[in-house]
Amino acid sequence: MTKPDLVQKLEKTIQNIPDFPQPGIQFKDITPIFLDPKLYEEVIKDLADFSRGKIDAVCGIESRGYLFGIAIAVALEVPFILIRKAGKLPPPFVGEKYDLEYGTAEIEMRTGQLKPGQRVLIHDDLLATGGTTEAAAKLIEKQGGEVAQFSFLIALKDLHGTERLKQFDAEVHQILEY
Amino acid sequence: MTKPDLVQKLEKTIQNIPDFPQPGIQFKDITPIFLDPKLYEEVIKDLADFSRGKIDAVCGIESRGYLFGIAIAVALEVPFILIRKAGKLPPPFVGEKYDLEYGTAEIEMRTGQLKPGQRVLIHDDLLATGGTTEAAAKLIEKQGGEVAQFSFLIALKDLHGTERLKQFDAEVHQILEY
Repeated sequence: MTKPDLVQKLEKTIQNIPDFPQPGIQFKDITPIFLDPKLYEEVIKDLADFSRGKIDAVCGIESRGYLFGIAIAVALEVPFILIRKAGKLPPPFVGEKYDLEYGTAEIEMRTGQLKPGQRVLIHDDLLATGGTTEAAAKLIEKQGGEVAQFSFLIALKDLHGTERLKQFDAEVHQILEY
Repeated sequence: MTKPDLVQKLEKTIQNIPDFPQPGIQFKDITPIFLDPKLYEEVIKDLADFSRGKIDAVCGIESRGYLFGIAIAVALEVPFILIRKAGKLPPPFVGEKYDLEYGTAEIEMRTGQLKPGQRVLIHDDLLATGGTTEAAAKLIEKQGGEVAQFSFLIALKDLHGTERLKQFDAEVHQILEY
C-alpha cells in the first residue's frame, strides 16, 4: 500500500490538462514529478517495495515506462529489459501486435534478453485500457517468462485496464487511481 | 575522463549490428547495458561526475536519453526535464524544428519547467550528426537557459556531431567514440 502522504504529494504535482489529446479527455501530465528528485525517489521506493523479492527482471514500456522502470530495476539489482515501439530495435527481436481504436500497433523486445522461467514485472507509467500492457504480457509469455507483477504510477479506472489484466494471474499495483 | 576499464566493459557489452537500419550502417545496440545494473550504475557515476556542480537541470531527449538522463539528475539532485518528440506533450509547450535527411522533425518541452538562467546539461545516449541535440540546445536558449554541457554515452566521430555543437560554447563529454 502506498503511503497516503505520497499519494497527496503526487496529486498536487501531477497536472490535469482538460481536453488533451482529444475533447473530453483529462490528460494527466506526470512530467512535474521529474522536476523534484526527492519526490521521484519516493515513487521509486514505493514501486521497488512492491516488487522486492518477487521478480527476476523488469520490462519497461517505451517511453515513459523507462523513467521509473530503470530505477526500479537498479534498486532491486535485476535486469531492465526495454520494450520498444516497432521499428526501432535491430534484429533479432520478438514482436506482439495489438489493436488501437483505429488500426493496430506493435511492440518489440530483443530476443534472448529475457530468460525462460524468469519472473517479470511489467511497468508503465499509466494503465488506460490495458491494450499495450496486455501485449507486453503476451510478449513475455511467448518467450517462456512468467508475468508475475504489473505496476503503474496511475490507473484510469473508467477504462477497466485492471480487469483486462486479470487473465494473467499476476499482482497489480498502482499508486494513484483516477 | 572515463576510466579505461569502464570503456572496455562497455565495448564488450554494446552489440554491433551491421546494416541496420540501412545497409552500410553499423548500429550500436546499447540495450545489454540495462541488463547489468552494476554496469549501469558505473555509467551513471561517470556521467554524474562530469556534471557535478556545473548544472542546475538535466534535459533528456526521448526516449533512450531518459534511461541515463533521469539517473544523472537524481544523482545530482537537480530537476530532470523531458524533451519529447512532437505531438506528445499537452500545451503549453515550446518547440524547435530540425532537418532530417528527408523532411523535418520537431522536439518539444513543456513551458515553464526550465527557469531562465539555469545551467543545463543536455543528455542523449548517442551523438550522430548532432541535429537533434542542436535543436535541443536552441530550445534551451529560446527559454533563457544556458547550455552548459552535453553528455552522451556514444559519439560517432565520422558524423562530426561534436563540431556542430561547438557553436554553443559548452563542455562535451562522451564515454565511447566510434
